[in-house]
Amino acid sequence: MTEIKVLAFDIFGTTVDWRTGVAEQVSKVAAGRGIELDGGAFADDWRQRYIPSMDLVRRKEVPWVNLDGLHRRSLDDMLAERGIGSAFDEDSRQELVRAWHRLPAWADSVAGLSRLRQRYTVAAVSNGGFALLTNLVKDASLPFDCIISAELTRHYKPDPQVYLTVAELLDARPNEVMMVAAHVWDLGGARNAGLRTAFVGRPLEKGPQGRADRAADAGAELDVISFTELADVLGC
Amino acid sequence: MTEIKVLAFDIFGTTVDWRTGVAEQVSKVAAGRGIELDGGAFADDWRQRYIPSMDLVRRKEVPWVNLDGLHRRSLDDMLAERGIGSAFDEDSRQELVRAWHRLPAWADSVAGLSRLRQRYTVAAVSNGGFALLTNLVKDASLPFDCIISAELTRHYKPDPQVYLTVAELLDARPNEVMMVAAHVWDLGGARNAGLRTAFVGRPLEKGPQGRADRAADAGAELDVISFTELADVLGC
Repeated sequence: MTEIKVLAFDIFGTTVDWRTGVAEQVSKVAAGRGIELDGGAFADDWRQRYIPSMDLVRRKEVPWVNLDGLHRRSLDDMLAERGIGSAFDEDSRQELVRAWHRLPAWADSVAGLSRLRQRYTVAAVSNGGFALLTNLVKDASLPFDCIISAELTRHYKPDPQVYLTVAELLDARPNEVMMVAAHVWDLGGARNAGLRTAFVGRPLEKGPQGRADRAADAGAELDVISFTELADVLGC
Repeated sequence: MTEIKVLAFDIFGTTVDWRTGVAEQVSKVAAGRGIELDGGAFADDWRQRYIPSMDLVRRKEVPWVNLDGLHRRSLDDMLAERGIGSAFDEDSRQELVRAWHRLPAWADSVAGLSRLRQRYTVAAVSNGGFALLTNLVKDASLPFDCIISAELTRHYKPDPQVYLTVAELLDARPNEVMMVAAHVWDLGGARNAGLRTAFVGRPLEKGPQGRADRAADAGAELDVISFTELADVLGC
């Protein structure tokens, strides 16, 4: 087994609970404008538009825009479709987009990363923009060694450029980097680029009714249910 | 006075004491090969070759190479000039280049950054490569919010691309970013790109006989002698 030097962690859903964080902030901002919204349903809808909106960029049907830009386009559409666009001015829309910069970590994230970074370089590797990730990592006190945003490559995961850039920037070969994620599509992209893979089950990522990705579909080298279990498995 | 959002810290000489760290590691590696070397003089010589070697890249006279690559070329020249090349094999040369990845912080660096990051985004902004900076920041426990290597731009400071990339990646205007450095040339580059500037005096950077840059030549907006004094001045 080749030595692992770098653990590359996906962020949304894998390291932080986007649904709870976005739902709470959306409900609060909406209430402040006199609108009652189901925050959880709104967050789910917003997130469901993420992959299609990103695929437009990946297929070069629209020019590069970072995740804040994608979130903003989806938000504008969602408010219009619900007939509540007039209740949200520019400032409140910017505030809503920035909800994605401030999300709670899963309960095991900080403890697991703290153990894993004793032996490995632990990198945040996400489709979130660089500023977003910097804000989010700081706000949630996540002890990453570095942040590598897809924005640095002007590609989005699962394009191989993102994974290969992680290896290149950290002076590692692709098979010395292990991608850690809760999503089958992300681990598939990592594997295609020659990285190692670890699946972390996050059954509540999409809420109690949502269907989270399952280990059986990921085909990953490691299969855990928390960052602390990952630290156990890797002997940290 | 426009609000400052980001403090961008130079690393070598400004945040860490490269001379002490490199001198100690060089002396040790050389002793292990049966060679007696004045580590301080060797470190000074190595550092003096840094700006000329980088300028070859900046003028596009040689293709892009990161700081490890520049350090390696200078090292090979220095060992040959001293007639001791045969004592240093490939492994020992790689070990010497990696001395720059592991350097002691100045005594005030961690304490000052810890205070400043309560109010500002604190970024490591250096000509060091991304892996080098990640290793160095981790080894010295420097509490930066993010690392922005010149390698991300394939330009070196004082080219404006590096400073402008800091603003762009952190979603700030150039005049919302303050470059903090112990070097006149770095602050000049930052000012040309529209950034704010703070000079930190590091009188021992080049050793007891060396001539460090002086505040009078920097013309910076702020002039301090430590990161903790910078925190005082900025009210953190």
